[in-house]
Amino acid sequence: MKKTVSVTFEPGGRIVQGQSGEMLIDLARSQGVHINASCGGSGVCGKCRIIIEKGGVEGGKSEKISAEDFEKGVRLACSSVMIDDVTVRVPTDSSLHKGGLSLQVPVRHRAMEHHFDIDSLRKEGLFFPPVEKVALELPPASATDNMADAGRLVQGLKNQYDEHRLIIGLPALRKLRDALREKNFNTTVTLARPVHNNGKTHVVNVQSGNWVNRNYGLAVDIGTTTVWGQLIDLHTGEILAYTGDYNGQISYGEDVISRIIYAEKPKGAELMQELVAATINKVITTLLAESDVDRDEIDSITVAANTTMTHLFLSLEPHNIRRAPYVPVSTFFPPIRATDLNLDLPKHAIALLYPAISSYVGGDIVAGVMGSGMYRTDKLTLYIDIGTNAEIVIGSKEWLVCAACSAGPAFEGGGIGYGMRAANGAISDFSMHPQTFEPMNTTIGRKAPIGICGSGLLIIIATLFEHGVIDQRGKFNQDLDTPRIRKGKSGGEFVLAWKDECGINSDITISEVDIENFIRAKAAIYAGVKTLVEEVGLHITDLERIILAGAFGSYIDLDSAMTVGLLPEFDAGKIMYVGNGSLMGARMSELSNHIRQDVVNAVQKMTSFELSEVAKFKDEYVASLFLPHTDTGLFPGVKNRKEALLNS
Amino acid sequence: MKKTVSVTFEPGGRIVQGQSGEMLIDLARSQGVHINASCGGSGVCGKCRIIIEKGGVEGGKSEKISAEDFEKGVRLACSSVMIDDVTVRVPTDSSLHKGGLSLQVPVRHRAMEHHFDIDSLRKEGLFFPPVEKVALELPPASATDNMADAGRLVQGLKNQYDEHRLIIGLPALRKLRDALREKNFNTTVTLARPVHNNGKTHVVNVQSGNWVNRNYGLAVDIGTTTVWGQLIDLHTGEILAYTGDYNGQISYGEDVISRIIYAEKPKGAELMQELVAATINKVITTLLAESDVDRDEIDSITVAANTTMTHLFLSLEPHNIRRAPYVPVSTFFPPIRATDLNLDLPKHAIALLYPAISSYVGGDIVAGVMGSGMYRTDKLTLYIDIGTNAEIVIGSKEWLVCAACSAGPAFEGGGIGYGMRAANGAISDFSMHPQTFEPMNTTIGRKAPIGICGSGLLIIIATLFEHGVIDQRGKFNQDLDTPRIRKGKSGGEFVLAWKDECGINSDITISEVDIENFIRAKAAIYAGVKTLVEEVGLHITDLERIILAGAFGSYIDLDSAMTVGLLPEFDAGKIMYVGNGSLMGARMSELSNHIRQDVVNAVQKMTSFELSEVAKFKDEYVASLFLPHTDTGLFPGVKNRKEALLNS
Repeated sequence: MKKTVSVTFEPGGRIVQGQSGEMLIDLARSQGVHINASCGGSGVCGKCRIIIEKGGVEGGKSEKISAEDFEKGVRLACSSVMIDDVTVRVPTDSSLHKGGLSLQVPVRHRAMEHHFDIDSLRKEGLFFPPVEKVALELPPASATDNMADAGRLVQGLKNQYDEHRLIIGLPALRKLRDALREKNFNTTVTLARPVHNNGKTHVVNVQSGNWVNRNYGLAVDIGTTTVWGQLIDLHTGEILAYTGDYNGQISYGEDVISRIIYAEKPKGAELMQELVAATINKVITTLLAESDVDRDEIDSITVAANTTMTHLFLSLEPHNIRRAPYVPVSTFFPPIRATDLNLDLPKHAIALLYPAISSYVGGDIVAGVMGSGMYRTDKLTLYIDIGTNAEIVIGSKEWLVCAACSAGPAFEGGGIGYGMRAANGAISDFSMHPQTFEPMNTTIGRKAPIGICGSGLLIIIATLFEHGVIDQRGKFNQDLDTPRIRKGKSGGEFVLAWKDECGINSDITISEVDIENFIRAKAAIYAGVKTLVEEVGLHITDLERIILAGAFGSYIDLDSAMTVGLLPEFDAGKIMYVGNGSLMGARMSELSNHIRQDVVNAVQKMTSFELSEVAKFKDEYVASLFLPHTDTGLFPGVKNRKEALLNS
Repeated sequence: MKKTVSVTFEPGGRIVQGQSGEMLIDLARSQGVHINASCGGSGVCGKCRIIIEKGGVEGGKSEKISAEDFEKGVRLACSSVMIDDVTVRVPTDSSLHKGGLSLQVPVRHRAMEHHFDIDSLRKEGLFFPPVEKVALELPPASATDNMADAGRLVQGLKNQYDEHRLIIGLPALRKLRDALREKNFNTTVTLARPVHNNGKTHVVNVQSGNWVNRNYGLAVDIGTTTVWGQLIDLHTGEILAYTGDYNGQISYGEDVISRIIYAEKPKGAELMQELVAATINKVITTLLAESDVDRDEIDSITVAANTTMTHLFLSLEPHNIRRAPYVPVSTFFPPIRATDLNLDLPKHAIALLYPAISSYVGGDIVAGVMGSGMYRTDKLTLYIDIGTNAEIVIGSKEWLVCAACSAGPAFEGGGIGYGMRAANGAISDFSMHPQTFEPMNTTIGRKAPIGICGSGLLIIIATLFEHGVIDQRGKFNQDLDTPRIRKGKSGGEFVLAWKDECGINSDITISEVDIENFIRAKAAIYAGVKTLVEEVGLHITDLERIILAGAFGSYIDLDSAMTVGLLPEFDAGKIMYVGNGSLMGARMSELSNHIRQDVVNAVQKMTSFELSEVAKFKDEYVASLFLPHTDTGLFPGVKNRKEALLNS
């Protein structure tokens, strides 16, 4: 059981509340208490020494702390876990020289997480899985009533459930005789609803006896990097298992373009299809192993993916996705038998693919728009999924516009000297002392730092800018009194961690070239959002809500994002994070046939813009190549944050 | 070029018209001129000697005719082919003893053949193949118009052909990119219409360039014995090739019951499916070899078959078809991908199966009702397909009733001492001298007789009865002065051909047991027809038209059928023969989507009776166990025919 603990930071006597089990250093950072820490929390640098004056913590030991000091209460903040109320003294060599604890680094905000709400789906009458099981007790055949088995079934569904317009598929017909007779004409029928109201309901499966409570579906998100899957109880709406695995295509290229290039080779497309199908099959096997569901009990699968991934999964030729004028084969996909896609699922299982909008606004984004509920909100909303490409959707239930911006790989660590993916040892969080400019790094997995991931890069650049270490153009202030600013091979650079604190054999730095690349990436996205809003005659300040999707969105520090001008200045309380919006949308479609029907309407409402074809986009882009923007009036919060630091 | 020739028969000087190329003996028989001929036309018996007095014939030579006789004009009638006007003397030892040529055997009637009329289909606006090809010229994609290929196609179909509610199948999507670009966005689209008006039209194929004139389909009839197929030009409606092959299942049993029994064994059903699919594949290969059509150009296949054959083809469990209360798995079948049925056809080809009515009134009969136009006639019609089971349909466009009668295998030569299938050497036609009782046999293929096929059996029994050789109960008149009537192992029998005239090492006879079996078979059918008519409150004399279907129907001698009481007494001019009604119906469905739609209505209109459950059927059956019937008033024509013979 977690409990609330009070932590008193000395000197200064500031009292803040935390949770037992939390790392002390994380509480300090979140509350703006600066403790020097270069090594990312791995204990290598030993700079984050603190003294426990009252109460106790768990951990915090290190070979860098003598037995004598340990006895006195000295610990490393980066490995101390809070267990109860405690008073902590941050020594001068740790809170550093001037100012001490009265100095505070800015408090950081993350986006609120939007949880998929099965109850509200129920309340709104939208919980209506497209695949449903019903139990039938039929009169056995007799000499005076020797209707065919199929006719008897249809009659029973009509009489007992008022079902009409039925069609019985071949796999169900093949099982029908035994399924009826094994339990004396008591049977369970699996019905798959049409997406369109005037379509037919398909009888996809029959089982002897009553199995209405065992009805399962899959939601799958095919990411370029990772394939995620959920096993869903279609009866209760619950997620029974959730897992992911690397997309097997990844060894043939990290991004969609290199996958397309590979698919254009002889047999390349077949291989791409087989690899992603094999990955999905692995995911399915894991999901089943984590549950008591049999493979044969899966009746349905909904897949959401970007346009390239969808094309490769369906073996549609992706060539023109990467060539102007960027024409996909299709943006709508028919229902497809799962086994036709090499999925290891029952013969009757049907795969539904989320429709796409264009070559670069795919089914993953459409799924997010559906899953987040954006398609039925009154509020003018910005939905944004930031990656190598940022997909942007703006609108409400009345209208939707969308576009993709090519941001480049900076947010995934690409084109950055020490950039890396979000993996162990990546600096993912950062703050600095406003006077000494000494950093407070946190790494993923608390390993000695080996590089910088996207969310780390964002917060580092924002922090450097807020502290005046870099200027509006991203150039270092060479006048500052710190050995961390120096000239490197690529011009000015800042040392985030010294070699002896690192997990690699060099200092880890951020250079002006890195910052330039980052600024180009964030400028493309901001310019995209601004252009799109203005194309529909509105202003960026008219936005009422922001929904962040994708892996990057979950780690993003909102204040930093606004400081650098990646996101428009906004009340953090109105920014929501939906995580894997694509998977959320896929799950929604598994649980609500209404939503499957609405998808078609939503997609038809979505107007796609090619930003490269919109004249003003280029101007907006150039205007955005500053921190936060040429027009600082758009970012009043930055000025406030900077002034607060100067006055601290 | 055939031409009409005049043949004068002497003595008597009777002049009749025939066709050049026709066999002289056939003309004689059809015109009631008796020429003795036991050996079936094989030339073995040499009894059919004639003398050509004027003009000439081709053939007619035999080692039984000396050079001297040949010089005098002596020929064998059974191998003489008419080429021009000719005068023929039938010598006393051939026209036999008393009476000579003034004696006439009855003139025989065959049913008029009903030809499938593509022109009338066109005139009535019913020529509307469910699979159609249309040519599209689309604007190429550009930076300002970069709609997906599929969207462009749908837009083009809407603009150029007013097509709506389209769905593009996966096989077509997979080809789409290249199909559009190979000929600069000129493409041919194959559209498959929905059976129901509110369904969707499927884009099943796309080709680059214009191929609208090359659109092909298959009509297939799966008979228990033979599988027939037609390759159809869906653009013109013409049959491009027509072939048949033995159903590969035949080595596992000749009738449906033994096939079902085999299918119940482990792996039996799979084998039955594979065997019939392999047969269809052979038929398809032959059809393609006889045309310039590529396999990939076949878009559609319609299959009609009896209920058991349909079940085995679809791998539906047929077990309950042979067990009371005779419940098939289904009588309606969904559209099925041809490759799912192991057919060697393109991936996009869809197989449509004719719906059935019950376990013993199958899709073959429904197809016949559709193909013959019975479902839209005003006239009260009897449709009958005679085999081991006789399927009977009675009605008009307003209503339809149907039933199956188990006639037993007599019509296929089963249960008859010298019975055989309609193959070379089977006695298939017959007449006799009214005073000497000498027979005039014709065999299939003009081979020395080896047995009796169904149509031969019918005409033999009718002739024996008409000539008073057997009585109403089928017993021989032992008082007649002929060595051909004798006591055999199974009671009385009649020698049709003596051993030395035969292709087997014994006399060929027909026994009272054979006749009894035949009477039971014909009684079941007649009683079935009468019961069915009366069940709907009508009388058998209300029938306005008879349609005969099936192989047996094509050879049936109508007068004989009425003489024995197999068919009701009827004006032969109102009896039509449709041949393979099942195949005709399959072809109609390939050519007319209206008819596909009408099938559903027709089937829903068709009320099926289980004759065994209708109390009066048994009484009718017993009353029919006479030649022609207990109630001779039902068959006035028989009396007339018998009297004419007595007075001749």
